[in-house]
Amino acid sequence: MEQAQIDHTLEEIRTALEDGKVPDAIAALIKLHPADRADAFSDLDHDDRAALLPQLDIPSTADLLEELEDDEAADVAIGLPTDLLADILDEMEPDEAADVLGDLPPARAAQALAEMEEADDVIPLLGHPDETAGGLMTTSFIAIKPGTTAHETIEFLRQISPAEETPYYLYIVDQAGHLAGIVGMRDLIIAGPEARVDSFMDPDVISVKTSTDQEDAARLMSHYDLAAMPVIDDVGVLQGVITHDDLVEVLEDEATEDIYRLANVPDPDLGIDSPVGTSVRRRLPWLYLNTLTALFAAWVISNFEGLFQQVAVLAVFQSVVAGMGGNAATQSLAMFVRAIALGEVSTQLAWRSLLRQVASGIIQGIAVGAVVGLGVYAWKGNAFLGLIMALALLGNIVVAAIVGTLIPLGLKAINLDPALASSVLVTAVTDSIGFALFLGLATIFLPHLR
Amino acid sequence: MEQAQIDHTLEEIRTALEDGKVPDAIAALIKLHPADRADAFSDLDHDDRAALLPQLDIPSTADLLEELEDDEAADVAIGLPTDLLADILDEMEPDEAADVLGDLPPARAAQALAEMEEADDVIPLLGHPDETAGGLMTTSFIAIKPGTTAHETIEFLRQISPAEETPYYLYIVDQAGHLAGIVGMRDLIIAGPEARVDSFMDPDVISVKTSTDQEDAARLMSHYDLAAMPVIDDVGVLQGVITHDDLVEVLEDEATEDIYRLANVPDPDLGIDSPVGTSVRRRLPWLYLNTLTALFAAWVISNFEGLFQQVAVLAVFQSVVAGMGGNAATQSLAMFVRAIALGEVSTQLAWRSLLRQVASGIIQGIAVGAVVGLGVYAWKGNAFLGLIMALALLGNIVVAAIVGTLIPLGLKAINLDPALASSVLVTAVTDSIGFALFLGLATIFLPHLR
Repeated sequence: MEQAQIDHTLEEIRTALEDGKVPDAIAALIKLHPADRADAFSDLDHDDRAALLPQLDIPSTADLLEELEDDEAADVAIGLPTDLLADILDEMEPDEAADVLGDLPPARAAQALAEMEEADDVIPLLGHPDETAGGLMTTSFIAIKPGTTAHETIEFLRQISPAEETPYYLYIVDQAGHLAGIVGMRDLIIAGPEARVDSFMDPDVISVKTSTDQEDAARLMSHYDLAAMPVIDDVGVLQGVITHDDLVEVLEDEATEDIYRLANVPDPDLGIDSPVGTSVRRRLPWLYLNTLTALFAAWVISNFEGLFQQVAVLAVFQSVVAGMGGNAATQSLAMFVRAIALGEVSTQLAWRSLLRQVASGIIQGIAVGAVVGLGVYAWKGNAFLGLIMALALLGNIVVAAIVGTLIPLGLKAINLDPALASSVLVTAVTDSIGFALFLGLATIFLPHLR
Repeated sequence: MEQAQIDHTLEEIRTALEDGKVPDAIAALIKLHPADRADAFSDLDHDDRAALLPQLDIPSTADLLEELEDDEAADVAIGLPTDLLADILDEMEPDEAADVLGDLPPARAAQALAEMEEADDVIPLLGHPDETAGGLMTTSFIAIKPGTTAHETIEFLRQISPAEETPYYLYIVDQAGHLAGIVGMRDLIIAGPEARVDSFMDPDVISVKTSTDQEDAARLMSHYDLAAMPVIDDVGVLQGVITHDDLVEVLEDEATEDIYRLANVPDPDLGIDSPVGTSVRRRLPWLYLNTLTALFAAWVISNFEGLFQQVAVLAVFQSVVAGMGGNAATQSLAMFVRAIALGEVSTQLAWRSLLRQVASGIIQGIAVGAVVGLGVYAWKGNAFLGLIMALALLGNIVVAAIVGTLIPLGLKAINLDPALASSVLVTAVTDSIGFALFLGLATIFLPHLR
């Protein structure tokens, strides 16, 4: 539905620009919801964007920069004159403006900040690392002193701009700025006009520190079903607010990161339309790392090289053992990486789960080993080959269950992201042990195989 | 932080129960935030739960059922007397009550519904499939007629219970229930007392139908940064509201589903602490499917069985070619599955991305092939072996880029979840083609390898 509308608008814009009617193109773009405008703008080519941008008014450009991906917003910002850019940044939400400034060359960012009127809202945000609650929060929140009455608060709300990003709660702070409680808009409505806000505020506020990791902050908001969560400094002074749209963005980014890392794509910003050079530069190191483990597995096989001249059929089945171990390990691995990401793993649970994975591994190993062993016996007519196959599969699938569990738990124990190196390590183990088990058993049973 | 508090409470509860002091145990549990209470309750054993439950008051039990995982909530509900269960369900949010009823045996659910006072709120929710917007929404929203003034609306809000789940917006509906617009609580506060709500409502409401897939609904809320989104029927009558916590739940479930499916774990409800029997029953069929593809690859190798008697070293390196193809394909696969899940893939983009993946594949294939080829030459002293290795790796990594792209796009084109079967299909192709390429080239160059 939206995509069809965006495609239609893109056609209108391109036709208007071809005819030299820039205002018509602008009008078509402005008809869209700001979120869709950014999608349409991203699909335009460089010339079309350059034709549109100078004619777009300041609030619309501010909306556009807020909705564009970070790298695209920086591209647009770099192309604007500094005084215009400063006006646009003033119009933006402080957290979004800080993101744009953070992506500009430092000298350019300093110039823009110097010309901004509302630089004071943005400067405190620039010091926080991107991946922390401080990097995620906005300074655009409404703070009210404890002694204020409901009536006074409502009058205050009438006076200030209605464009604040965080309309759900009011934050009650004392003279020194310490967060004392929150008041929902609805609590305010149903309170008596003369009631003081501290008499009906909720003093049990769930908050995080500016230095809290964004993933932990997101986990907390999700756990307590919060639409907005205040961020305080080390002494409890309210610094900003994280809103539900930030939470959604973090959750999506973290899910992308885990899926990518399990697949050995180390950079979550890499997309299917990233330039070929970037894509290769980021992915190739991990392919080389995988090459090392593959060559290690090849070295394991090379120790049994003499076997193949005597029993060539071993070369046919060795990969089945290694591969099935990899598949079984990947199942356990995915479940543990996800459980760790969702914060569901306590120490007690980890041990119980390890035992359950091993028990599952034994049953699955017997089930797969028996079927494949019988199949190989039927195919090649050698019972010992079938037996070796069954035993090696059983052994490797149990090993798979253990390493698919212990490697993510171990990486977490040393504070590394379990998703980061798990796949490489797990496959290295199941490949090497799979080949060693199968070919080792074949050496033992060699007289029965020839 | 929360975990330490929960662990401490668990100790208090267990000590109190050992001493037979149930009220103390209840008091310790109640001190926690409802979301944490559910976590603590889940960690208790069966006897402790059974001791606590009958003493918990109705609102607290309702909170607990809302926060527990669906299967645990159903377990608790089944153990309660029907009249008590009905009272508890009345106290719960309608969407959560509907979820519990949906997980009960049908006869039991019918009995509970018959004894409920607020069954009318819940019954409309029972007809919607779980994975649709209708299955996700709550019927607990505040609807206001267009002619109502701001003052009258505020008086109405003062009268009704403040426990509604959706406090952010009011929904303006006509006599027939058609959704006409929304009003934020803050708009209501700053409006003049005699202003009619339809004079300051926002008539451009983004909404979905009850039958919309929950993933599409979540994507829309995330795209437009909505804290709540109305759900309408086919003629535009407001049926319910999806809130930000539902959105978060859908996003987390869909991410789990994709990670699991890419790892051949078909059931997103499977967890690391699922019973061994369940775990094996769900995972084993996918291991068997992988077995089939592994045996197919073995059959490919068996066509070259004679080679290994002449040149045993081929058995050492064949798996490197197959494995590296699998790794490269998994990189492309993960990026496409994620892009499709995030709704970022248009037809135009798909073609451009395919070309980019193939270009990356050629460069990565040359890079990996050259290094491994030279390494194998240095190791085994045979230039032709190195050349075969390099060519087979190049070929298979290009194949990997193509299938890692086309298989998820193809599955999406026929309306299947790209994550579901992609891994199996992709590995089947890269394994079989990897072995065939390497052993085929070896057959051609055989005189130079002996």
